[in-house]
Amino acid sequence: MLSSAEPRLAGNLPSHVRIVEVGPRDGLQNEPGVVETATKVALISALGDSGLDYIEATSFVSPKWVPQMGDNKEVFAAINGDGVRRPGVVYSALTPNMRGLEAAIEAGADEVAVFGAASDAFSLRNINCTVIESMERFQPVCEAAAKAGIPVRGYVSTVMGCPYAGEVDPEAVGWVARRLLDMGCREISLGDTIGVGNPMQMQRVIHAVCSDEGHGVPLSAVAVHCHDTYGTALANILAAMQMGVSVVDSAVGGLGGCPYAKGASGNVATEDVVYMCHGMGVETGVDMDALLAASRLISHALGREPASKAAKALIAKHDAERAAAEAEQDAKARRQQERAAAPAQQPLPSGTASRACHAQAVAARQ
Amino acid sequence: MLSSAEPRLAGNLPSHVRIVEVGPRDGLQNEPGVVETATKVALISALGDSGLDYIEATSFVSPKWVPQMGDNKEVFAAINGDGVRRPGVVYSALTPNMRGLEAAIEAGADEVAVFGAASDAFSLRNINCTVIESMERFQPVCEAAAKAGIPVRGYVSTVMGCPYAGEVDPEAVGWVARRLLDMGCREISLGDTIGVGNPMQMQRVIHAVCSDEGHGVPLSAVAVHCHDTYGTALANILAAMQMGVSVVDSAVGGLGGCPYAKGASGNVATEDVVYMCHGMGVETGVDMDALLAASRLISHALGREPASKAAKALIAKHDAERAAAEAEQDAKARRQQERAAAPAQQPLPSGTASRACHAQAVAARQ
Repeated sequence: MLSSAEPRLAGNLPSHVRIVEVGPRDGLQNEPGVVETATKVALISALGDSGLDYIEATSFVSPKWVPQMGDNKEVFAAINGDGVRRPGVVYSALTPNMRGLEAAIEAGADEVAVFGAASDAFSLRNINCTVIESMERFQPVCEAAAKAGIPVRGYVSTVMGCPYAGEVDPEAVGWVARRLLDMGCREISLGDTIGVGNPMQMQRVIHAVCSDEGHGVPLSAVAVHCHDTYGTALANILAAMQMGVSVVDSAVGGLGGCPYAKGASGNVATEDVVYMCHGMGVETGVDMDALLAASRLISHALGREPASKAAKALIAKHDAERAAAEAEQDAKARRQQERAAAPAQQPLPSGTASRACHAQAVAARQ
Repeated sequence: MLSSAEPRLAGNLPSHVRIVEVGPRDGLQNEPGVVETATKVALISALGDSGLDYIEATSFVSPKWVPQMGDNKEVFAAINGDGVRRPGVVYSALTPNMRGLEAAIEAGADEVAVFGAASDAFSLRNINCTVIESMERFQPVCEAAAKAGIPVRGYVSTVMGCPYAGEVDPEAVGWVARRLLDMGCREISLGDTIGVGNPMQMQRVIHAVCSDEGHGVPLSAVAVHCHDTYGTALANILAAMQMGVSVVDSAVGGLGGCPYAKGASGNVATEDVVYMCHGMGVETGVDMDALLAASRLISHALGREPASKAAKALIAKHDAERAAAEAEQDAKARRQQERAAAPAQQPLPSGTASRACHAQAVAARQ
């Protein structure tokens, strides 16, 4: 350890982070209920308004397995037909196989994604084949996508832990990431899909994936995808950024708490990532207020608060500021009325004064 | 930025982090209701069982201002008389002035703490004097404590932002930290008391406090105290650890969500800090299961879930594992009964099987 108190982050972080918004797909897929198509479309529209330039909109998987994404065609019809599409924004879809790819292309997806795992135990239970077999299955999907001129993103799941096998070897992550790159994926997203990882482990994984001694995947082709199950997501993302990773997956409102497991959290919240990045002077191109509007929209539809601490704190702060301003306005109007009615001085009605005072105190505590 | 994918954390973190548990004081002080003395004592006892060796138990402040700590004498009477004290554990108390110090000494506190702010605006509203005046007020407290052989811990609040003045100059933090050290505080806790900070800012603050160009406070005398209002607490703690800080304040169950502000979070949860540290091989001396018992105890008393993602995930995992084991046991017993009753083969009752299956699935997802 260095003995002097030198900052280590300054000069060691990317100047810009690109956020891949996965809320409409990875998020809503893991919410208990099925969200109406109109709500999804409104969410995707609001996300596009916030400055996010990459939105994973849906998946083309059998509705037998993922009923939440059964309206994938309708979602893309709205993106491409109903004024939802924003210039410069990529709207992508998850496609596990050739059938999914064909449907995604027909629906007008800009980009598709395939997903492998770093753990055989998980792969076998999730998609009923080993990791190696899954790579063989993706090969023709990548080739067909290339032929159609559609870029492909590759996910590696369970990179820091597997729900069935426990620990995962970073070397296995490196091997899968390299295979996905070699078969044509333009970007590899390293997913701590059960949110168990820690910052040092994240750096070991990235080292195995990207270093020359490891699998030599360019850092510029790597994204991180952290779930916040144990609260470590932002710390893990920071650790990745410190190694030069500049693409981060996240979901507005921290969507995607696993419906089957009490207490399990979903994706890291986009609001939290944006708050941390902007605070450090790392640009994201996202407007926080517009992002909060999207967050409010989907939280309202789901009937709960956003699972984002930044969103909750900012919304409470804005509400308190608005209440303070309104109370101040009320008090001012009342003073004017009173002055007009009776020239003698009177104390303020205590209700109004205490309301203004309380609201100011609340705003200040933020 | 380095071009190679080298891990930056390995070898740059302390091997051991000492946790200062502030739940019974900073946590419960900011909870809406007043917790019964017996519950506080049970909590302090359970925390002592977990391996935590420093517990801030209460404060000696006027009950007019902080009614939640009005039972400070009773709490220390229990610590010192009712078998609550654990060998090797320091039980401390917050003391804003001479009167508080005298009461704390009489009650048998092992250590006391004084608190200054890095922002005049905050200091004036919180303790009705400027930062410089507050330092003058603490001087005799520190001298009297030294005479009584009681070590003093110094808090600096609002180190990364002030609710009234906004930005805070790291230089102001350094000045206050140095003053507290010079007047005899053995440790200085740097508090982001409104939880607005980010990791780079944390490193700038520590640089201002500890570097030779700054105020030269030894890194070994510095602690960090992060609230998780915007979700950045663990990332900020990681950034501090990376600079060599090895003392971290936290509150079991993330106690202390501000009762006046909807959505504001409390202290970073001890469970989350322990989870991250242990995952990285950084020792804390804390037994997670025993810590979870303390977390369950206080959460139950407050009638809510712990505000700790690690606690929620681990409790859900343990519950699911237990349910799976019980269901397995049930099914086994039933099979034996059935075999004994009727030798012909029968299918398992579907209820039991699906219960076991569901519980296993839940456990696996963790």
